[in-house]
Amino acid sequence: MLSQLSSLFFSKMNMVSTSDHASVVSMNMFVALLCGCIVIGHLLEENRWMNESITALLIGLSTGVVILLISGGKSSHLLVFSEDLFFIYLLPPIIFNAGFQVKKKQFFRNFITIIMFGALGTLVSFIIISLGAMAIFKKMDIGSLELGDYLAIGAIFAATDSVCTLQVLNQDETPLLYSLVFGEGVVNDATSVVLFNAIQNFDLTHIDHRIALQFGGNFLYLFFASTLLGAMTGLLSAYVIKKLYFGRHSTDREVALMMLMAYLSYMLAELFYLSGILTVFFCGIVMSHYTWHNVTESSRVTTKHAFATLSFVAEIFLFLYVGMDALDIEKWRFVSDSPGTSVAVSSILLGLLMVGRAAFVFPLSFLMNFSKKSHSEKVTFNQQASIVIWWAGLMRGAVSMALAYNQFTRSGHTQLRGNAIMITSTITVVLFSTMVFGLLTKPLILFLLPHPKHFTSASTVSDTGSPKSFSLPLLEGRQDSEGDLVNHDEETNHRPIARPGSLRMLLNAPTHTVHHYWRKFDDSFMRPVFGGRGFVPFVPGSPTEQSTAPLIERT
Amino acid sequence: MLSQLSSLFFSKMNMVSTSDHASVVSMNMFVALLCGCIVIGHLLEENRWMNESITALLIGLSTGVVILLISGGKSSHLLVFSEDLFFIYLLPPIIFNAGFQVKKKQFFRNFITIIMFGALGTLVSFIIISLGAMAIFKKMDIGSLELGDYLAIGAIFAATDSVCTLQVLNQDETPLLYSLVFGEGVVNDATSVVLFNAIQNFDLTHIDHRIALQFGGNFLYLFFASTLLGAMTGLLSAYVIKKLYFGRHSTDREVALMMLMAYLSYMLAELFYLSGILTVFFCGIVMSHYTWHNVTESSRVTTKHAFATLSFVAEIFLFLYVGMDALDIEKWRFVSDSPGTSVAVSSILLGLLMVGRAAFVFPLSFLMNFSKKSHSEKVTFNQQASIVIWWAGLMRGAVSMALAYNQFTRSGHTQLRGNAIMITSTITVVLFSTMVFGLLTKPLILFLLPHPKHFTSASTVSDTGSPKSFSLPLLEGRQDSEGDLVNHDEETNHRPIARPGSLRMLLNAPTHTVHHYWRKFDDSFMRPVFGGRGFVPFVPGSPTEQSTAPLIERT
Repeated sequence: MLSQLSSLFFSKMNMVSTSDHASVVSMNMFVALLCGCIVIGHLLEENRWMNESITALLIGLSTGVVILLISGGKSSHLLVFSEDLFFIYLLPPIIFNAGFQVKKKQFFRNFITIIMFGALGTLVSFIIISLGAMAIFKKMDIGSLELGDYLAIGAIFAATDSVCTLQVLNQDETPLLYSLVFGEGVVNDATSVVLFNAIQNFDLTHIDHRIALQFGGNFLYLFFASTLLGAMTGLLSAYVIKKLYFGRHSTDREVALMMLMAYLSYMLAELFYLSGILTVFFCGIVMSHYTWHNVTESSRVTTKHAFATLSFVAEIFLFLYVGMDALDIEKWRFVSDSPGTSVAVSSILLGLLMVGRAAFVFPLSFLMNFSKKSHSEKVTFNQQASIVIWWAGLMRGAVSMALAYNQFTRSGHTQLRGNAIMITSTITVVLFSTMVFGLLTKPLILFLLPHPKHFTSASTVSDTGSPKSFSLPLLEGRQDSEGDLVNHDEETNHRPIARPGSLRMLLNAPTHTVHHYWRKFDDSFMRPVFGGRGFVPFVPGSPTEQSTAPLIERT
Repeated sequence: MLSQLSSLFFSKMNMVSTSDHASVVSMNMFVALLCGCIVIGHLLEENRWMNESITALLIGLSTGVVILLISGGKSSHLLVFSEDLFFIYLLPPIIFNAGFQVKKKQFFRNFITIIMFGALGTLVSFIIISLGAMAIFKKMDIGSLELGDYLAIGAIFAATDSVCTLQVLNQDETPLLYSLVFGEGVVNDATSVVLFNAIQNFDLTHIDHRIALQFGGNFLYLFFASTLLGAMTGLLSAYVIKKLYFGRHSTDREVALMMLMAYLSYMLAELFYLSGILTVFFCGIVMSHYTWHNVTESSRVTTKHAFATLSFVAEIFLFLYVGMDALDIEKWRFVSDSPGTSVAVSSILLGLLMVGRAAFVFPLSFLMNFSKKSHSEKVTFNQQASIVIWWAGLMRGAVSMALAYNQFTRSGHTQLRGNAIMITSTITVVLFSTMVFGLLTKPLILFLLPHPKHFTSASTVSDTGSPKSFSLPLLEGRQDSEGDLVNHDEETNHRPIARPGSLRMLLNAPTHTVHHYWRKFDDSFMRPVFGGRGFVPFVPGSPTEQSTAPLIERT
């Protein structure tokens, strides 16, 4: 059986058969469009409104229109959005690169805040959207939707796409905001997918306490097992590369091994029915913390940029694809009878996701604000920043599309009226939020945070008390992967002892304590075994790291 | 039609559906095996006999055996060798990287020699193998083979695989040999594929002068049009990157654009029914000559190593795949009745390809030798080196496999006895030549060229006369892409005026004259327009190139 299926798997890989000339044409078109997106995105870089995602989306839409006209409006499919293409080829490089390039110190210092926004917030969003959809849609004439469908709608529209916002925010000027939005985005992606899978796998016809508990347990298991698997794969790559020290002979071997191990971590997660997104994200973090320091300078430059490039291309590919796919006629056929219903459903969903997001962003921000005020700090962060955080999560993107296709095209090809409406509504919401909200992002942020420099300095000035450990690390703009070891001792000295009894400390003390012990453990055991900055075997004739650092930072 | 086929194309891309767990298993296995090949290949690097190709082949074979045992010997397919996978995904990065990393000066100085070995030699090989197979196989009991089949056999077994030899030869110690074997390998690949396509497209039932002329014209058209297309795409990428100068903003954009343009050149060639191999090879050459100099330092390091890594992984993937595929039971079923015939056919083919190669390597070497003797040079090159060149082309690899599958599995799945025998014979020849000849390569070269240093110096000492331009550039070990401009003026001064009347000059003078005028044209027109070393727009604050050069060379 294995061999038969693997033959299936390989026969499926033949994307373009040499005899199939039309698919060569479309492939050429697609690659040329990708090049066009890069060039146009570069030309529009200084533009106030545009960014690469919207450019790709618009180009995709226009191409779709052109093809629709050429084919005489007959073609039912322009490009079929394949969720497998998305989950197997496009998402892994994007998420891995996110983990690989994340400023680890920022991420881990804010770990609890990020998890609260990402996981708890997504749950709140999911519940509000599901309940709202259930309450409103049941009164409307949109075909038969079951409980599982409503829950799926909640998971689908809880998946945010913060790419637009991240392209505008400056990592050095507003590091706290950036790390929050970024971290929330990753955790949110993972949470939505895990939620979605849990919904599909559970029998939801009769819910009781036991099943709800099982559901929660399953969710936690997926979360921790996936994280662990990613960390293990990353450590394995670090250990192998450190032990064998490939660099003396071949940069290519090191780079190849890092790429393959990263992909292996994702595939292993799929193998064990875990969340590949979380796994590959933590694999990226571990690889940048250990493995990256064990390889030669050329390998470091290469991996840093090669991973970023793959992620960049995958993102453009994705938006181009979503843009072209939106014009698939067959999906719109069912809706064309009652355009009013479709617009209503889309508007309701847009409203729900705005409410669902506001329902956790502002309370959580208030909580953070309150905990800070209890230490008589004057932080300018909350008013504008919480609006930015709220805004950053309003866009919906490819994850929502992929999940919607998975849920609503399984039973027949959108033949059911309810399914067809949900698919078109998802497309509408994705297009509208990405284009309208996305276009407004840059002006909005420039309006809310007009002097980011001022903003940063305002907070830095205020660190007169002991909670420096909270305000400073969150707002400092230090290049993390470059300064991990150098600044290490200095910072451990500054770290205050946790004072119980304050809500702020309740939120942050565990992170800091864990972080402190982790540092000790890292220095005394992990780094000597797995390598990492300062623990790389000495290579005679190898130039110092400093010669490479400016080369990397310059981009 | 276009849209329907493009939907087909994208639906085919879903290699692994999330529900199809068994294909996830096989994909995990494959990625893990790739990692294993890299690690084991590294550990065996100092070994006298092994190299990465043979390691991958052996690991593939053993895995095949294990899977065969697990499935109880029932499975008819382990992994189906898909020629599309090979020609669309694996071959382009390998050939592009070959062009990108080739020492351009060496390659172009020896252009005529390389073309003679690569194109003329392949033709000779093709004719001898076709005629030999026709003469011998017709007397044997191996089913019905037509004229087209015999010609295809000639093209299939004229395609050499010089990877094994190139892994052993040292580019710096024996640059002439290396560039000859390397250049011949690329030209040979292209020639075989072009020949093969020409055979399949022509009606060969009644041959006359007109068709033979058409065939030749078609061949030449493919050759020049493909080259031109590759050069144009490369120049376009250079022009775009120079004009827009991405580097100030993003390394990722530059790297992405180079990768996409390279792939686009290959796909464009497919679109126009040209030879993608030749196109992507010349695109690589042009990109390394112009585009590579227009990008930032980080982009240079990244592209250099990223392309090499992709090529490296593709090669290992290929050998692993060939190893696993060799155990497909169905193909062997037809042959198992008469194992004697199969062994006989394989032996005859092996003999034919050895004779076919000897038939042009030794005469051509003699010609080169003769032309040199007429200038009273004492070159130690010919005796041993021509054996090495002959040996380097004895291995058959993935190109032969892919072509054989294309020819002999089209009409029913190897149901015809003749087809089945040809497929299994191809596998046997590929395995035998790669394993046995491949294993012997390292010892043979060490035996024939025991003191490569000595070999080089012997020739360098002899350059007392005017033909320095022939002996020195062929044997010098200069890193070409680093020193293109610096050594340029010095060398043009040294170049002698061609003396007519000698066979050697007849071979080499055109190359040099062309090379000379090309240089002038390059400096006065091409480089100012398309960039290239020394003609990159000045960037304030950008460090000099010298800071990167050691970083690149160190690997």
